[in-house]
This record gives sequence, structure tokens and C-alpha cells, in this order.
Amino acid sequence: MQLGMIGLGRMGANLVRRLMRDGHRCVVYDLDRDAVQELEKEGATAASSLHDFTDKLERPRSLWLMLPAGVVQPTLDQLIPLLDGDDVVVDGGNSYYRDDMARAQQLAPHGIHYVDCGTSGGVWGLERGYCLMIGGEEEPVARLGPLFRTIAPGTGNAEPTPGRTRADGTAPEGYLHCGPSGAGHFVKMVHNGVEYGMMAAIAEGLSIIKHADAGLRSRTVDAETAPLREPEAYPYEIDVSEVAEVWRRGSVVGSWLVDLVADALARSPELDTYTGRVSDSGEGRWTVLAAVDESVPAPVISAALAQRYESRGLGEFTDKVLSAMRGEFGGHAEKAG
Amino acid sequence: MQLGMIGLGRMGANLVRRLMRDGHRCVVYDLDRDAVQELEKEGATAASSLHDFTDKLERPRSLWLMLPAGVVQPTLDQLIPLLDGDDVVVDGGNSYYRDDMARAQQLAPHGIHYVDCGTSGGVWGLERGYCLMIGGEEEPVARLGPLFRTIAPGTGNAEPTPGRTRADGTAPEGYLHCGPSGAGHFVKMVHNGVEYGMMAAIAEGLSIIKHADAGLRSRTVDAETAPLREPEAYPYEIDVSEVAEVWRRGSVVGSWLVDLVADALARSPELDTYTGRVSDSGEGRWTVLAAVDESVPAPVISAALAQRYESRGLGEFTDKVLSAMRGEFGGHAEKAG
Amino acid sequence: MQLGMIGLGRMGANLVRRLMRDGHRCVVYDLDRDAVQELEKEGATAASSLHDFTDKLERPRSLWLMLPAGVVQPTLDQLIPLLDGDDVVVDGGNSYYRDDMARAQQLAPHGIHYVDCGTSGGVWGLERGYCLMIGGEEEPVARLGPLFRTIAPGTGNAEPTPGRTRADGTAPEGYLHCGPSGAGHFVKMVHNGVEYGMMAAIAEGLSIIKHADAGLRSRTVDAETAPLREPEAYPYEIDVSEVAEVWRRGSVVGSWLVDLVADALARSPELDTYTGRVSDSGEGRWTVLAAVDESVPAPVISAALAQRYESRGLGEFTDKVLSAMRGEFGGHAEKAG
Amino acid sequence: MQLGMIGLGRMGANLVRRLMRDGHRCVVYDLDRDAVQELEKEGATAASSLHDFTDKLERPRSLWLMLPAGVVQPTLDQLIPLLDGDDVVVDGGNSYYRDDMARAQQLAPHGIHYVDCGTSGGVWGLERGYCLMIGGEEEPVARLGPLFRTIAPGTGNAEPTPGRTRADGTAPEGYLHCGPSGAGHFVKMVHNGVEYGMMAAIAEGLSIIKHADAGLRSRTVDAETAPLREPEAYPYEIDVSEVAEVWRRGSVVGSWLVDLVADALARSPELDTYTGRVSDSGEGRWTVLAAVDESVPAPVISAALAQRYESRGLGEFTDKVLSAMRGEFGGHAEKAG
Repeated sequence: MQLGMIGLGRMGANLVRRLMRDGHRCVVYDLDRDAVQELEKEGATAASSLHDFTDKLERPRSLWLMLPAGVVQPTLDQLIPLLDGDDVVVDGGNSYYRDDMARAQQLAPHGIHYVDCGTSGGVWGLERGYCLMIGGEEEPVARLGPLFRTIAPGTGNAEPTPGRTRADGTAPEGYLHCGPSGAGHFVKMVHNGVEYGMMAAIAEGLSIIKHADAGLRSRTVDAETAPLREPEAYPYEIDVSEVAEVWRRGSVVGSWLVDLVADALARSPELDTYTGRVSDSGEGRWTVLAAVDESVPAPVISAALAQRYESRGLGEFTDKVLSAMRGEFGGHAEKAG
Repeated sequence: MQLGMIGLGRMGANLVRRLMRDGHRCVVYDLDRDAVQELEKEGATAASSLHDFTDKLERPRSLWLMLPAGVVQPTLDQLIPLLDGDDVVVDGGNSYYRDDMARAQQLAPHGIHYVDCGTSGGVWGLERGYCLMIGGEEEPVARLGPLFRTIAPGTGNAEPTPGRTRADGTAPEGYLHCGPSGAGHFVKMVHNGVEYGMMAAIAEGLSIIKHADAGLRSRTVDAETAPLREPEAYPYEIDVSEVAEVWRRGSVVGSWLVDLVADALARSPELDTYTGRVSDSGEGRWTVLAAVDESVPAPVISAALAQRYESRGLGEFTDKVLSAMRGEFGGHAEKAG
Repeated sequence: MQLGMIGLGRMGANLVRRLMRDGHRCVVYDLDRDAVQELEKEGATAASSLHDFTDKLERPRSLWLMLPAGVVQPTLDQLIPLLDGDDVVVDGGNSYYRDDMARAQQLAPHGIHYVDCGTSGGVWGLERGYCLMIGGEEEPVARLGPLFRTIAPGTGNAEPTPGRTRADGTAPEGYLHCGPSGAGHFVKMVHNGVEYGMMAAIAEGLSIIKHADAGLRSRTVDAETAPLREPEAYPYEIDVSEVAEVWRRGSVVGSWLVDLVADALARSPELDTYTGRVSDSGEGRWTVLAAVDESVPAPVISAALAQRYESRGLGEFTDKVLSAMRGEFGGHAEKAG
Repeated sequence: MQLGMIGLGRMGANLVRRLMRDGHRCVVYDLDRDAVQELEKEGATAASSLHDFTDKLERPRSLWLMLPAGVVQPTLDQLIPLLDGDDVVVDGGNSYYRDDMARAQQLAPHGIHYVDCGTSGGVWGLERGYCLMIGGEEEPVARLGPLFRTIAPGTGNAEPTPGRTRADGTAPEGYLHCGPSGAGHFVKMVHNGVEYGMMAAIAEGLSIIKHADAGLRSRTVDAETAPLREPEAYPYEIDVSEVAEVWRRGSVVGSWLVDLVADALARSPELDTYTGRVSDSGEGRWTVLAAVDESVPAPVISAALAQRYESRGLGEFTDKVLSAMRGEFGGHAEKAG
């Protein structure tokens, strides 16, 4: 079927490619004309403006926005007068699910359907397919089924789940209608929260292995620094990159994230090109907010979020207060190293 | 080659089966004679005593212990007088790596080699292969290479790591000589710590999704319980088992653990058969101890361990102290529900 | 000066008593007529309705609401038509600071001033005085200075801060104008978040001391439960109530909370009357939400909040998922005990 | 009575002064002769060597070691041949309680009694008194009662605990015999763990208040950084030093630590002289180890310890791994700021 794509960054462009490979027709638009031309060469229909874009789409139209979260709302506002009843707009980016709820309500009086679609898969999705978590009304979500099916990895991507007895449902193909408006981005948001926790667990573990040589390094011994009581218990110089590689095979922690970290460590065993300032792009913090609201204890995901904040130096005042207290009660001066 | 296996529980028996399938010969021993006979029927050589067992092994002998951690030391003590110089004993169970260090020193004067081998793969390893993390001297570890190669999943189990340029190394086959005595169980220990953190992240995330219906359930409103400020933001009744299924395909959190949880939820969407008392078998707590000793911050793995303790009611006195303080300063009585 | 108090629960009634003791005149109102009569006997002027209440107040009126958070808004809505320009309404309860912002805006067109006042001190405040954290415009806050001064503990309550050089400011008297509308409840909210963390630290510590006898108790040893490696290191049966008592004197952790826990443990060393279900009344969770929004790492306060949730069984589904995963990969059945 | 003090650093010297003020006689020794002379001027008996020191003590001798943890054992080894049966050696420093157990066993065959005494109070103890947590045999601990009573703050230091009915016990005077050898330092160790948690709660809270101006500061908006959704909710520029001051009076978080932080902030509102590298001197990490061993969940104290590690940059490799994973799956480059 035909889809119009607005936003031709890495994700948007790859979605278009994956769709065209499977026989779908795409109309593409982006403020960056080079991005448009690039996909035109690959077979897409180029649009020169939002007007041109909506004109070139068959009705009822199917549109997909793959835009930075901050650009979605103004784009929608521009689109509304150009659309007609029964058109469907998919927001495939990382919008906050509460914005989805508001946008669905904004479009409803115009008869336009709004579908939120959390899209996981990153730069590898073109080949691997994207995991799709979808929210919105039944009919428009069903209508776009052929597109979702193409974008998702399909059943061949993983072994069937042995205990699964139900024959219906699209989850084994890699896409899922999770519920009404916002439900898709809600599930994607939590997916990213889980990702934060899994990443942290892997990273902490590799760091503990890397520092298994603690007994070989001398440590300053003074009243302010606890010495290592049993240095003989930490004599190991372990090749962390090989550990990540071996964990890819048959272990309980086997996962795509371990695959990725093995790749990164194979390229750069000390990860010298990184400073360790870990960004967070919203979903992790929203997950923590949801957990607090729902009264669900989420100590691990919360700790992973705090760890990212600390990696960026955001705990500085807290730490100064701690040092100041130590200075007050113990006369402890801070140590240079 | 030939291997002698002591301990024919699920793990030990499946190791023997996997070895025999690949043409290795196994001598087997267990206090449970039925377990011995079962494997004899499948082609193994049965031993009726430790004496008989060591007699039936070609020299230099290769032995593998697959025993509960508490039984390893007494078994070793019995074995020493029955073994000869240059024999190799592998401890494939979950021993604490510090015990490995001591045992290697205990065996050294007898010329017996001790190899510690962390074995991950659980009940699925027979088909899938086991990830092996190995510690000990170079020569005996190399000598047992053919056995490790059979037990491990092999390179076919996962795509090659794109960034990997080194041609040597056994990690891509699923086994790794990590370092001297204890290094294998050290890496396996941390592997399990990582497992705790990953499991917790997945479980918390699914729980947050399950409770996305918080706005539909009424909550008692009184001075002691915070009401949900925006119930309209939590209107979703999401099928958690389908979410786990879809996350298996193309998502960033795709992993064997997500495969397993999808299976468990497919069988029992409410997990009614579980009470939620989560055991811990040592490696997680040892990982936290190592992190503390090494001065490596591990907030996520530490939180995952505490969560398991709390699941078993071990925070009870702490919680009573909290309630007592609230009673003291606020006159707050505890609530029944 | 004169103050009208609405809400004569424990806190409201004690505020009235403390004010009258210091010569202020109070008009009191509550739906509970007994509460009104009780204070009338003690010298307050009773009001029989909101109408009667506002009639009996001198203009410009000074009103104080000491109500459950959920009752503040409807009470304000009823009061507005009964009030006049330049009247001041203080919300002394535990409102969310964002509600303060909205209420101040709601009252502004009527010329009515809104002051939010976080009030800490609990059931002991009558004698000890209350710590007041105040938000609102300069003039009305200054106008109510004599009331705040009476309610607060005063400078005699604690030694002067040695390093303090500024002579101005009311903080040493125990009340502080923190900033514009909402700032008072914001600071009080965070105060309670700090309280959660301090309480948790004390409770965890006492629990670790109580369980210093772990080596004396036998533990089941099996593959699912880690045995205590060095039971001889945990041979202590320590009287936790005496520890709390001694910590009250000269220690670094000396605090009102330690005073309270010492009292609770003196009354009931095992705290048998508590079940350990620890309520949370909103401020702790709001503090975590603020930290997340502000990008401030708050791992300790977040952990304290999660701990309270877990104490109430809210981690149940998470724990079931963990047990289910263990069952899947290890064939581990849950343990009964 | 007479006491011999070895180690005349700040703590040791002040203990001697406090004892002499109350009429006790002290023999003092330190490798630093200036420290010895200083106290000689104040009335102590100077010793020029360990020999001279033990000669000048009446038998049975009472000795107190106030030394860095690493110096205790060699000093004890030197002392043993100079001591006699029934002498008592107090270790008043911060030894690990397991070392106490070993030392008590080392001294026992010589008939020398070993008493471990955790001493809290810091630089303020001379005036305020020290909280003493004591381990060892009944008789020698009782014998030193007059010394402990002088060193401790005494009952005047805090109000009596209302619920306390037992008339016996020394805890209200500020010293406590906690149990056999090691019990004193065990309780002191946990005391410091509690201190870590309380300090962290206070520091996090003040940091959240300091950043209540987050809505006034602009933040980079891009795909890698979550924007603040509701900047209007964070408009406050709150004077954190005044908040600390007001919390000293009548609030639930009132504590010596809040007194200290108020002092530090009064001297330096931005704490510019601190870098925020927070040391840890052993007790906090030992507390976490004990909690893990005892199976007591201690998420808050554990988080506080991890926070200190992170403040010193010890999470660097972990953070690099996180950034590397983000780079792999999302093509996210790290951000400079």
C-alpha cells in the first residue's frame, strides 16, 4: 500500500527503504532536500512541500511522522488543514504518551485518526526489522496492518515461544496493538526504561570484571580511604572484550545488548573514545515517573536513571554537601585524587 | 576424548549426553544409582564407587564435578588419594571463586590440576550448548579443549561480531579461558550478578505496564495514602504476555530472558502459580561483595539483590521500625490494607 | 493578633492552643462540633458555619486552613465569596506545591492573598514548636509574622549555628519565607523526602544490628539458598533498643528520629504491634518526581520510596516475574519458606 | 582512675583532655614528641617509649589505643611482651570488628583483656562528649566504667526517652556494652553506615531544592537530552543555607548532621571550596557487606555507598560501556556538555 513519510533522518529513511523493498509505495518529505532526493533516487515519490505531500497521497491518506519529539506538534498543526476525514497519521517517534492522548483528541473532531507507534530497532532495523508498539483505535490500526507487517521483523526473526498456544495475535510477527491512544508509546517508554536497567546491569558487571585486578594496584592507605583487606582475592587481569564475546553464546545474559557491547569492545577494548557522559532521552525518566504514580517499586530502573544523571556530573552539589558534612564533623579535608 | 563425570543431576547428565552425542566417551558416577543406570543405558560407562570411577579413567585422568557447592570439598578430599599427578579435576558447578583458589593450592602438591568452570545455560543447555567461563593453568585448560568445544554452543549459535578482527580466541565458540584459578567462577559469578539486574529491569518494566490501569482502580483517599493525581493518565489494560512476546522481535531489549518470560506468561498470564518469593543462590551477593571491595559502584545490581531479599520478607524489621517512627512523630496508625 | 482556623484535627487544634498561650486570639471552625466546643472551652471563639466564621474575623482577615489535602480546594471554593480584598488565606497542610500555584492564581483576581505553609513537627509540636516553610507574596507573609513567630520553636530550641554571620533572617527562629507561591510546600515536600531517606537509613542500620546473630541461626542449605559462609562472624545478640538509646548521645547520627525510634523500642523492643506496612502520604513520591524533572540524581531518596512500596506488597507482580524466569531457565521451583 | 593513651591525634588528645578535666590521670605516648609535650603541659604524664609507657602505668594496666586502623596490629604486637595478665587494652579507633575478634584471641593466652570501643563524636567530642559502643568481656568493661562515663556525654546531653521504663543500663549516659569482642566496633560500623544514608538523604534533598530553579535555566533541546516538560513548575531560587538553618528547629529531620550542614552553608553558601569527591573510610562498605551476608535488604545504605564511589569517578568504565552501547544501537554520539 501507499505511505507518506515525513522526516527522513536515519530512522525515517530506513523505514521507507524497508517498505519499498517489500513493494509498498512511499511519498517522502523533509526540510532537508538532499534527504528527499536520496530516497527519490531509490524509488520514492518526492514531495516539495507539505501541500505537495498531502496532494500526492491517495485517500484516505496514511501518513507517518518520524520526527524529533519537539517537532511533532507544530508539524501536526500545519497538517490538519491539509488532511481529510478518515486519514490516519502515525507518530512513529518517541513522543510522550500523554501528548498522544492530547493529539488524538485534537484530531478527532476533524475525523482524522491518530496512531502512536513506538519503534525500536535503532540503526540496525533496516535489516533486522523494527519492533512496533502501537496505540490507537482498532480500525485505523488494522488498516495499516500491511505496513506494520513489513516494518516488523516477522516470525522468522526468533524461535516460536514454546508455551504459546493462542494462534491469533500479531506479536510473534513483531508488532502489537497495545491499546487506545498513547498505549503504544507507553509500552515503548517502559521498553526504554527496561533498556536502561539492562544496560546498567551489563555495564556494572563488566566493570566489576575489569577491576578484578584491584589487588594488583596499590592503593593509598590513610584514615580517609579504606584499604583493600584481601588484595590476594583480586589478582585477575581479565580481557573484558572476550568476556562480552563469550556471553553472547549460550549464557543466560545473552541478548542484543551483549551483542552490541561485544562489538564495541572488539573495536576498542578500553573504550577510549568515550568520556562516559551518558545521555538520557526522556523515556527512562518518564518510566520512573509512571512507576511512582502507579505505586510500583522500581528500584533498579530508578537506580539506572540516577546513574546516568551522575555520569553527567549532575550530582555535584549533593557530593559537595557530603564533603562539607564530613569536613564539619571529622575535620576531614577532601582528597585530591 | 574420555571424561569422568561425578554428579548426574540435570546439569551433569545433560553435559554427559551432549558429550556422547559428539563422540566423547564418559564414565559416570553418582550416589543415586538410578541416575547412573539411566546414563549407562544411553551409552555411558557406569562406575559403582569413586574407586571404580577413578580406575575406569585413562591417565592422565579428566574428571568433571557437577555437584552442589557444599559437596565439592568433601568429594575432592575423597578423590585426592585416588588420583595421580597430571590428572585434571574440573569443578563445573557454582563454587565461590575463593574456594577455587584454595582448592588449586590444595591439589598442587599432588601434581593434580584444578580447573574451575562456570557453566551457564540451565535446563536448555543440552540443545543450546553451555557458555563456559574457565579458570586455571594454561596446559590443562588447553588439554580439555575438545571437551569444552563440544559442550559450548559453537560459532553457529550467534552471528559473528561485526567489529571483531582478531582471528584467534575461543570466545566465539562459547568458551573462554578467563585467567588463573578462580577466574572462571569469578566471571560466572558476575554473569549471575548481571543476570539479577537484567531480570529485575524486565520484571519491573512488565509490572509498570501491568499497572498502567491504575487510573481505573479506585484508591482509598486519606491522609495516609497518596491519591493518584491524574487517574486519566493511567487508563490502559495492556496484555503483558503479548508485550513480552513482541519484545522478542527486533527490540533493543531482545534477549534470552525476554524469551523465557514470554514463555512463562504465555503459559500463565497472571503467574498465579508463583508466590513471588525470589531465591538467590549466592553469586548475586558475591558480586555485590566484589563490587564493594573493588570500589566499583554497582547501584543497579545491588538494588536487584536487595529486591530479592525484600521479596522473601527479609526487610520486615526494617519496615516495622519505619512504621514505628511514623507512629511516633505523626501518630499515624498502620493501615490494614 | 487574630487568626481564624479551619480544621481542628490534632495539628489544627494544637496550633490554636500554641497561639492562644502566647496571647493571640483565635476563631475556630470545623465540621466536627465537638472539636469546636473543646477549643471554645479553652478560650477560642467558636464559629457555627463558614459564614459565621468569616463574620467573626477582623478585616483584613487572616485565615489558616489545616485540612486534609483533598478538602482544601472545595473549602477554598466556598470561602471565596465570603472573603474580601486583602484577606490572607494560609494553607498549612500538605498540599502539592503545584496546587498552591494554581490557587494563588485563582484568588488573585479577588485581591485575596494565598500563603502556603509547610508545617513540620507532628504530635510534638504543641510543646516543641513547628518548623514553618512558607511561600507567597512578601507583604502578606510579613503581615502574619507574629503568628509564625509564635508557632515556630524560636531561637532557644537549638544552639546558634557557629558559622552564621548574617544577623537578619527568621530561619533561626524556626520559620522561613522560602519564595513565591508554592515555595513553602516545595521545601516541605523535599523535607519529607529527606525524612524518608533518614528514616530508611536508621531502620536498615538497626535491622543489620538485630541480625548480627545470623551465625547463631541455622539456615537451610540447598542449591537455591546461599549459605552463610562465615557464621562465626555473626555471633552477636545485640539489644537494639539500647543501641538506639546510646546513639541519642553524642553520636553523629543523633537526631529527633533516633530519639523517636529509641522511644518506640523502649516501649516495644520487638515492635510486635506493627506489621511493617509503611504508608507514604505523597511528599516522598513528589520529591522523587521533582528530582527526575530537575535531572538531580537522588538514588537514596528513590530507594527509600521504593522500599515503602515494597513493604506494602506492591512489588508482587515484579517478584512473580522474577520467580517465573528462574523457573524457566533453571527449573527452580519457588521455596515455601 | 589512671589511663594510658597511645596515639595523640585530634581524637586521642581530646579524650585525654576530657578525662583529665574530670580528674582522671593519663600517661600519654605518641611517636610525635610535640604531641606528647603539648599534653604534658596540660597535666598528662609523658612517656618516651612504649617501655617507659607501660612502666608508668599502675597494674592491672588500662591502655587505650587511638590509632589509624593500619597501625593497631603492629602496636599490639609490640605491646604484648610489655604487658601482664589482667591488663586491659582498649582499641578506640575504627578497626574492623573481625580484627577485634582475632586480637582478643591473640591476647587471651597472655591473660590480657581486649576491649573494642567505637567512638563517635568527631572534632566536637571534647565539649559534647563521645558516644561509646563497647565490645568485650564483662569484667574488664565494667572495670573501665569510670573512664567511659567521663568520656561519654552523660544524661544531661539529651532529654530522657519518655517510654523508657528500665532503670538500669548505661545507654542514657552515652556508652553501651554491646556484647562480646567485636560487638562494639560492629555497632559503630553500622552507625557509620546509617550516617552515610542520613548524609545522602540530606544532601540529595538540599540539591533538589537548589535546582528548583531548573525552569529558569535554558536546556539544550535535542534528541539526546530530555527537555523539561513543565519549566513553569520549577521557578524557585531558594536560599539553601537558610533552609538548612530552619530545618534545625522543630522539624522532623532535625539532627546533628543538619546542624553541621547549616554551619557549612552559612560559611560558604555555594560550598566552593569543595570538589565533591567524597571519601569513605571503610565502615560504610563493611556495613553493606554485613547486610549482604545477613540477608538484610539495605537498599538505602547501599545506594549511599555507591553514590560516594561515583563521586570519586569510580563508575567511569561503567559509564563508558553505557555510552558505547548507546553509540552501537542508536548511533548516538556522546555529547560534550
